[in-house]
Amino acid sequence: MLSSPSDGPNRRLILGALAVLPTLPGLLGATTAQAQTAAPLVSWNDGPARQAILDFVHATTDRASPSFVPPEDRIATFDQDGTLWVEHPMYTQVVYCLERVPAVVEKKPELKNAEPFRTVLSGNREAMAKLTMPDLVKILAATLTGMTVEEFNADVKKWFETARHPRWKRPYTELVYQPMLEVLRYLRDNGYKTYIVTGGGQDFVRVYAEQVYGIPPEQVVGTMGGTKYGYAKDGKPFLTKEPKLLLNDDHGGKPEGIHLMIGRRPYAAFGNSIGDREMLEWTAAGSGARLEMLVLHDDAAREYAYGPAAGLPDSKLGTFTQALYDKAKKSGWTVISMKNDWKRIFPFE
Amino acid sequence: MLSSPSDGPNRRLILGALAVLPTLPGLLGATTAQAQTAAPLVSWNDGPARQAILDFVHATTDRASPSFVPPEDRIATFDQDGTLWVEHPMYTQVVYCLERVPAVVEKKPELKNAEPFRTVLSGNREAMAKLTMPDLVKILAATLTGMTVEEFNADVKKWFETARHPRWKRPYTELVYQPMLEVLRYLRDNGYKTYIVTGGGQDFVRVYAEQVYGIPPEQVVGTMGGTKYGYAKDGKPFLTKEPKLLLNDDHGGKPEGIHLMIGRRPYAAFGNSIGDREMLEWTAAGSGARLEMLVLHDDAAREYAYGPAAGLPDSKLGTFTQALYDKAKKSGWTVISMKNDWKRIFPFE
Repeated sequence: MLSSPSDGPNRRLILGALAVLPTLPGLLGATTAQAQTAAPLVSWNDGPARQAILDFVHATTDRASPSFVPPEDRIATFDQDGTLWVEHPMYTQVVYCLERVPAVVEKKPELKNAEPFRTVLSGNREAMAKLTMPDLVKILAATLTGMTVEEFNADVKKWFETARHPRWKRPYTELVYQPMLEVLRYLRDNGYKTYIVTGGGQDFVRVYAEQVYGIPPEQVVGTMGGTKYGYAKDGKPFLTKEPKLLLNDDHGGKPEGIHLMIGRRPYAAFGNSIGDREMLEWTAAGSGARLEMLVLHDDAAREYAYGPAAGLPDSKLGTFTQALYDKAKKSGWTVISMKNDWKRIFPFE
Repeated sequence: MLSSPSDGPNRRLILGALAVLPTLPGLLGATTAQAQTAAPLVSWNDGPARQAILDFVHATTDRASPSFVPPEDRIATFDQDGTLWVEHPMYTQVVYCLERVPAVVEKKPELKNAEPFRTVLSGNREAMAKLTMPDLVKILAATLTGMTVEEFNADVKKWFETARHPRWKRPYTELVYQPMLEVLRYLRDNGYKTYIVTGGGQDFVRVYAEQVYGIPPEQVVGTMGGTKYGYAKDGKPFLTKEPKLLLNDDHGGKPEGIHLMIGRRPYAAFGNSIGDREMLEWTAAGSGARLEMLVLHDDAAREYAYGPAAGLPDSKLGTFTQALYDKAKKSGWTVISMKNDWKRIFPFE
């Protein structure tokens, strides 16, 4: 149910980070503030990235422009992890799944001594870091399926109330990038429909996307699991989340998910990793003015540095490889430097 | 890729109707006019059906009402075949698939003498009426998959330009129910997002839904097939329609499709057949004011009569059975009588 399960570096990124996870979530947190700005893109420094956004919006919304796009066709898609919010040290959804294990085992005591659940329950970070990909899939299946959609939504919502990021000690929903909130708003103010297109679970992201990003559930495209319609004893119908993968919304799955859920080609697409490459290609292959942007994580002081800017070989880079950087440069895609293009990173700063 | 492939009466309905199909489509047709009315629901007679719609909209949009629904939650879903447009003598998409067979065989000559293609090419209506369900599935797979999404869209669009309904000799896209166009518009004027939720192919319906119903592609939920991302020789990416069923959007698949594509429970749902029952149940199971309506085809003179009103046993009724009628009465769902509730049926009248 998560992005790039087969990516070696990705997996290392997830598992290697277990050591810094807090064992227990912190205190109750405030809700995340929405970007509310009069002037567009105020958290952006003047430069080619900010200018590319302004130029694109002008070219596609000015009726006199040869690249004018009718309002109904204005679609913009955004990857989430690493593009709209922090993805380090671990995808937030993976943290959720690991922390859900005790509750799952409580309902199914037979799992208590079965692997990989026993290892997760042990809290032994070194042992957890050695979990295999099939182990992780078992954990995802056990924690993301088997309940009604209402139960799942309530669980996720409750978890976010107390879960805290290990570095900032804040709710994960506060660790969104202020400059990207401004891009979402600026595009919407100019008639664009903004979509999340994420390798994360569609139902998971929907729980908070409206509050955090102003993006309603029907505009969240993610990795999709099947549901099953059934009836309770009192005759009331319900939908159960099934361990059936309909679409892995990553790499080629992103254009496929866009076609399935939207049915139109985006005019603008934002990502930060090799899993977003196909979405940006698909966007770029349309006619007229298009905008493709990649967030480069090159700011170890204010966030993290793990892109090519970190000076590491591809095998150590996680998801933004040198090959992706070269592809962007060759294709005329705009690379956003967090360090140079963003005045501030988070709304709370 | 179609609704209820396993329904006996449904299949009889489709195949038995082959006899009246025109062998060649007619002349170029005009585009379908949108309903444009100042007063709401002018093609409806005063009565419980019209009143139920007015009462529902008042209850959910008046801020003083205890059942007030915030605009972002206002979702209304509509079945298509038999609810928004004519489904007799055959689902329009099945007509399309059968008429596409010659073009498919031209590209794949090896199919010319293979069944079921040989039978379809023969034009022998009696032989075609004996085609089995696996035969039909082969025809659907051959005519709805294997091409890029752009090629498919262009083919469907072109077909609609010349295809004519055998009874009215008009484009299928004109055979929409004027009173339902008025409901769509009335709900949208009151902040509702209107969705099609159809057993028909999602990509097929998207081709004309915006023009005919004012419903954009992202608000068409249908039977979903997978696509596959790939590259042409020049490096340009494309999506190919695959013979892979992701969701059969009928019966329990309708609430499942609604959850997948919308992620919210509808406040209003409209249908006309046993395949819509679960969507109406799912809608009704929500709290507050909800509206569930079924179109009863009881007007042989102006359209068709094949519901319980036709006085036939369930086995001969096609999709609106006596059991569904009883369920509606018991559940407080509103049955729309085409004969009594609708002043006119089509926009061209």
